[in-house]
Amino acid sequence: MRALGIHHIGIAVDELETAVETYTRLFGAELEHRAQLEEQGVDAASLHVGTGRIELMAPLEADTPVGRFLAGRGPGLHHVAFEVADVAAELDRLRRAGTRLIDESPRRGLFGLQVAFVHPEATGGVLAEFVSDDRT
Amino acid sequence: MRALGIHHIGIAVDELETAVETYTRLFGAELEHRAQLEEQGVDAASLHVGTGRIELMAPLEADTPVGRFLAGRGPGLHHVAFEVADVAAELDRLRRAGTRLIDESPRRGLFGLQVAFVHPEATGGVLAEFVSDDRT
Repeated sequence: MRALGIHHIGIAVDELETAVETYTRLFGAELEHRAQLEEQGVDAASLHVGTGRIELMAPLEADTPVGRFLAGRGPGLHHVAFEVADVAAELDRLRRAGTRLIDESPRRGLFGLQVAFVHPEATGGVLAEFVSDDRT
Repeated sequence: MRALGIHHIGIAVDELETAVETYTRLFGAELEHRAQLEEQGVDAASLHVGTGRIELMAPLEADTPVGRFLAGRGPGLHHVAFEVADVAAELDRLRRAGTRLIDESPRRGLFGLQVAFVHPEATGGVLAEFVSDDRT
């Protein structure tokens, strides 16, 4: 198996509007999606940067995954998402190899993506996500 | 101006050989370049992950930029590099807008790339790099 590419880079930010403006101004990012997702506790935006994509996430409350990340480390790079054809198949492959996972099965992520997170312990400190983008 | 895309994601690791093996096994990464760069204090590898690219950096000594990053935050996501046509032109544009930079002019980065870093203060916490890849 080989990931198809980097689907996006996830970035934790204090406040979404300011971050969208910053990435637009500095790097020519262009807004793709934007949504407040109560169940995940984030105000999120995905932006194209040329052929690449970044996902900006601001916490809706302090006691959310992104809120706790910000409290511990401050704003910055949060995760990297690798695009794969079949998230469930990748999870099966890693589980058989004894890899520590956060999500045991694919779930619906931001903006309708199929996602699953691998535990940072398995990668040496990086929170990595598998994404299958069946929206297009 | 608009970045052409994400050139690579830089990841700080404790030990290069193990990290290369991990990204190959988990995500099907394929080694592109590898070099010990004394002047930058890193043992580095660049790997293709599908159409994407990651750059793994292990410190040659504790008192190096990557060594200090590891001491402060542990291994993990270190920077994101946006590919642009002309690094010098982007620096001029940002400087005129009063953006805080780390590199005031392009320099030779890992593996022969033309690079310059923007200060994390300007992005809201993310170490961002401009890259012009004139190797190909």
